[in-house]
Amino acid sequence: MSIKAIFEAHIFDLQNRICKGLEHADTQGQFVEDQWQRDGGGGGKTRILNNGKVIEKGGVNVSVVHGDLPELFKEKFKVDEATFYACGLSLVIHPKSPKVPTVHANWRYFEMYDKVGNLKTAWFGGGTDLTPYYLDEEDAKHFHQVNKNVCDKHDTSYYTNFKKECDTYFYNSHRDECRGIGGIFFDYQRENDHKSIQEIMNFSIDSGNAFLEAYLPIVEKHKNESYTPEEKVWQEIRRGRYVEFNLLHDRGTHFGIKTKGRIESILMSLPSTVRWEYNHKPKLGSPEEQLIEVLKNPVDWA
Amino acid sequence: MSIKAIFEAHIFDLQNRICKGLEHADTQGQFVEDQWQRDGGGGGKTRILNNGKVIEKGGVNVSVVHGDLPELFKEKFKVDEATFYACGLSLVIHPKSPKVPTVHANWRYFEMYDKVGNLKTAWFGGGTDLTPYYLDEEDAKHFHQVNKNVCDKHDTSYYTNFKKECDTYFYNSHRDECRGIGGIFFDYQRENDHKSIQEIMNFSIDSGNAFLEAYLPIVEKHKNESYTPEEKVWQEIRRGRYVEFNLLHDRGTHFGIKTKGRIESILMSLPSTVRWEYNHKPKLGSPEEQLIEVLKNPVDWA
Repeated sequence: MSIKAIFEAHIFDLQNRICKGLEHADTQGQFVEDQWQRDGGGGGKTRILNNGKVIEKGGVNVSVVHGDLPELFKEKFKVDEATFYACGLSLVIHPKSPKVPTVHANWRYFEMYDKVGNLKTAWFGGGTDLTPYYLDEEDAKHFHQVNKNVCDKHDTSYYTNFKKECDTYFYNSHRDECRGIGGIFFDYQRENDHKSIQEIMNFSIDSGNAFLEAYLPIVEKHKNESYTPEEKVWQEIRRGRYVEFNLLHDRGTHFGIKTKGRIESILMSLPSTVRWEYNHKPKLGSPEEQLIEVLKNPVDWA
Repeated sequence: MSIKAIFEAHIFDLQNRICKGLEHADTQGQFVEDQWQRDGGGGGKTRILNNGKVIEKGGVNVSVVHGDLPELFKEKFKVDEATFYACGLSLVIHPKSPKVPTVHANWRYFEMYDKVGNLKTAWFGGGTDLTPYYLDEEDAKHFHQVNKNVCDKHDTSYYTNFKKECDTYFYNSHRDECRGIGGIFFDYQRENDHKSIQEIMNFSIDSGNAFLEAYLPIVEKHKNESYTPEEKVWQEIRRGRYVEFNLLHDRGTHFGIKTKGRIESILMSLPSTVRWEYNHKPKLGSPEEQLIEVLKNPVDWA
């Protein structure tokens, strides 16, 4: 089987397993699927869980698209004529409770061909990162450790590099703070002198397979904790920073919009209720301020 | 007096008059002022009205800044060394009630100098536009007519051009719809064969002075109307589109962020409570659908 056939089968299966795991943790909510077609070739399955018991809004999307390389990519990769194939799974889970962190993950594979259809280049990208509203150091250590274990299994340099890339990428430069407490982020992982494309794919598959192990224990630990209306307001203010990152800085969102992707699948990443308060500052010494401190100065959790 | 001295005095005076007029309409809320300094030169007065009786969140800001031209502007205007002066008033008013439209306005003046301080170019820009949650055709006609009257007093071609520019600029291309029902938008209005810079300034001053006449009657007409929780939800969903425009498309927001402007003054434009619902579609024949129709197909209101 080709790399793309193996990886495509993996992400559809992973979508099923992740949705089932999240539904089990939610105990009430269920994912609803929208299938869509892309004009230029391919399509996807968008799955949304809305207003569950634990999850306020969550999306777990798979897309498999192909066709002529969009103009933007042609400029970026300095090619005149090319076709492409891309598949990926993207997810964002926004829990109801401010005690349960938001999580994002993405695993994708990209192939580019010349005008007669010869494969010119191929790479994997992806990662996962956690955005808590209240810092729980044990959660942070657990989430990073699970991801480090996956990395270490494949390459002892991965975790250090991909953890740093994650802190650098998910950064709200206009606020001088990270979006969350990080995780791993990798891109343009091509076949090289040390790794075959199969080995890179195996890392990406293992990374996806570790998602539920990284996230679900954190959900289970906090999902029944009580919270105050003030803590919910704080969550909504922090969700505002999430929206700011996704709309101002996220390359994936911009690429989707500029290439006229399905807008509801792209913007499923935005939380349900969000709040902006002018010049909001957490109280000195509060748990809210403690979170900001960690977002401004990323910690080595694993 | 120089153009910049006259216009600067005008916008500070206009800020006072607009804040007073809005406070009078609100009957309870009051603007609170934050003065701030810019590292590279100049500063501003940000005035915020939070949680009034009519206005949920409103900002009326003046800034007067000068110094070395930021790198981004140097590239844009293809100059190596230059200094600049810019002053402007920016306002966004988000009312509590979905029956009262959101309004935005901005008037600004920009001067650029060569390295020895000679004035190289100067222009005015600005405009105002209305974003209702429920369409009231009388409101739309009134708002456009007041702005048309100001335009016509100065140049009979202004309204047609600036109305079209407004519909083109405040456009959420990723949704194929306008942000609101428009108004006027003008930029790079320089001295030319037909108009002196004084004449252009006088138009900009008259445009600012007409703001309360354009907006307040609409507030007064609707501020005591009742509304349902469902109508409030619709307002919050539409506010999401406002956020999308400001963060994804607005040149002013991007310029402010890229040049490291005061972030709380830039993002005061974002509404207080906002909502994103996956794939939300208004009911056929509903007032909500009627609004979307007009946002997709701009109307000649005046």
